[in-house]
Amino acid sequence: MRIGRYVNGSGRAASAIGLDSGTWVEARQVEPWRWEPTDRQIEVQRWLPPIEPVDIWAVGKNYAEHAREFGSSLPENPILFMKPTSSVIGEQEPIIIPAACDRGPEVDYEVELAVIIGPNPVRDISEDQALNYVFGYTVANDITARRWQKHGGAEQWVRGKSFDTFCPIGPIMVTAADIPDPQALAVRTRLNGNLMQDGHTSEMIFSVSKLIAFISRDTTLKPGSVILTGTPSGVGFARKPPVFLSPGDEVEV
Amino acid sequence: MRIGRYVNGSGRAASAIGLDSGTWVEARQVEPWRWEPTDRQIEVQRWLPPIEPVDIWAVGKNYAEHAREFGSSLPENPILFMKPTSSVIGEQEPIIIPAACDRGPEVDYEVELAVIIGPNPVRDISEDQALNYVFGYTVANDITARRWQKHGGAEQWVRGKSFDTFCPIGPIMVTAADIPDPQALAVRTRLNGNLMQDGHTSEMIFSVSKLIAFISRDTTLKPGSVILTGTPSGVGFARKPPVFLSPGDEVEV
Repeated sequence: MRIGRYVNGSGRAASAIGLDSGTWVEARQVEPWRWEPTDRQIEVQRWLPPIEPVDIWAVGKNYAEHAREFGSSLPENPILFMKPTSSVIGEQEPIIIPAACDRGPEVDYEVELAVIIGPNPVRDISEDQALNYVFGYTVANDITARRWQKHGGAEQWVRGKSFDTFCPIGPIMVTAADIPDPQALAVRTRLNGNLMQDGHTSEMIFSVSKLIAFISRDTTLKPGSVILTGTPSGVGFARKPPVFLSPGDEVEV
Repeated sequence: MRIGRYVNGSGRAASAIGLDSGTWVEARQVEPWRWEPTDRQIEVQRWLPPIEPVDIWAVGKNYAEHAREFGSSLPENPILFMKPTSSVIGEQEPIIIPAACDRGPEVDYEVELAVIIGPNPVRDISEDQALNYVFGYTVANDITARRWQKHGGAEQWVRGKSFDTFCPIGPIMVTAADIPDPQALAVRTRLNGNLMQDGHTSEMIFSVSKLIAFISRDTTLKPGSVILTGTPSGVGFARKPPVFLSPGDEVEV
C-alpha cells in the first residue's frame, strides 16, 4: 500500500492512499498506523513528509563504492549519526543553502532508502526478525554541508547534517508488505535532470536487517523512528570537478 | 519557579510546582509551557523527566580542563552531536550497562547543565537575545560508552552516546527567570558518595548564549529541544586508574 500525507482543501494535514489504478483517495485512519481507503478521490496539490519522525538515525558509508570515493576503508560496524527532526521537509520544498556555508559551495545531495519503524517499538532484535518491525519505506535526501561535516568540530558529522531543510523525505511511503526485499531497490539522484547517483540497495555493506539489529542493540527504536540507510557513490563532492548544490538547482531522489 | 513531572496516585504523569517553603503542590497547566500552583499539596513518590525532549543536542569538550583530559586542543566551534529521545530516563531509574559493552567496563558519567528551549522556537538568534528563548534549566547525565564512542565507526560519537538509559535528566527544571546567569552554576557528580566532577559553568568555553546562537544558525530549535552543554573535567575514563560504572553504583549529578 502506498500512503502519503498531504494538505487538504481546508489547509489541514490528511492522509491519502494510492490505488493500483494510479488514482489517490482520501484515507481514513482506523487506528494508529492503520489507514483504509475511502471512495473520495483526491488530487494532491502539496505532499507533506509521510510521517513526522521521532528520532532520525542515519548511517554513513554503507555502500562500498561510496566509502571508497570518501577515501575510507570499509567500516567494521555501521557508522551511526543522527539528524534533528527540525531538518525534515517535504517534496517540492526548497533546500536552503545555509548562511553558515559562507566559505564557498559545499552543500551536497545523498539519496537514501529510508526505513520507517512502526507500529511497535523494537529493541534487541535478531537480523532474521528485524524486518517485522518495519512499517514501510520511503526515500530521503541526506543533505550535507561537506565543510561543516569534516571541520565542524572533532570531525563529528552532526553540524554538517543538521541544518534546516537538510532532510527532504517522501512523499510516499510504501508499506513493508509491498517491499518484501528492501535489498532489491534502485536508489538514484538526478540533478537538473542529470543522473548523478545510480545505486542499488543490493550494494549495501550492512543490509536493512543488519542495520536494525545493530542499532536496536540495547537501544529502543520507537515507532516513528526513521533510519536513513546510507548513500551510494556519485555524490557531488567526490566528483572531478566537484559538484555542489546552487540556488535554482533541482534535485530529484 | 521549580517544576517537575511525577507519577500521581492514579499512575498518570502530572506536573508539580515547588514552593519556596519547600513543599510541592499539584500544578495546573494553563496553556502550553505555563503552569500555576494549586493548593493541593503532594508527596512525590516517583519523578519523571521534566519534559519529553523533541531533539536532544549535545556539545562535546566545552570545558577546557575536560578537553585537556580528553587529550584535545580547544575546539574552534562547539562540537555538536545528538542523542535519541529513546535514551531519556528519569531520576532513580537505573542506568543499564549495555550488553554491547562486552569488552570490559567502558560506561562513564558526564554531568551537564541542560537547557530547555521553549515556549517559542528559535532560529538565527544573536548571543545577546539567545537566553530569551530558554524556558528553563535542569541537569542531565550524558552517559557514554567510551569504546563505542571512539571506535563505533569513523569516530562518530553517536553509537556510544545513544544506548537506552544513557540520558538521565531532571527531575526538576528551574525556569529561566530564576536563573538569570546560567554561567554561575556548580556542576557536580558524586559516585557512591564520592565527588568525581566539581565544575562550574563559568568554565565553559562556549557560554549557553553562544551555544544557542551557534546551534540555531540556519537551524530551528523547536520548543522542547534540549541542549546538553558539555561536561567539566573529572570523568571516569581520564582518571588514573580509570573509573567506569559498575552494577550497583550510585551516580548523582
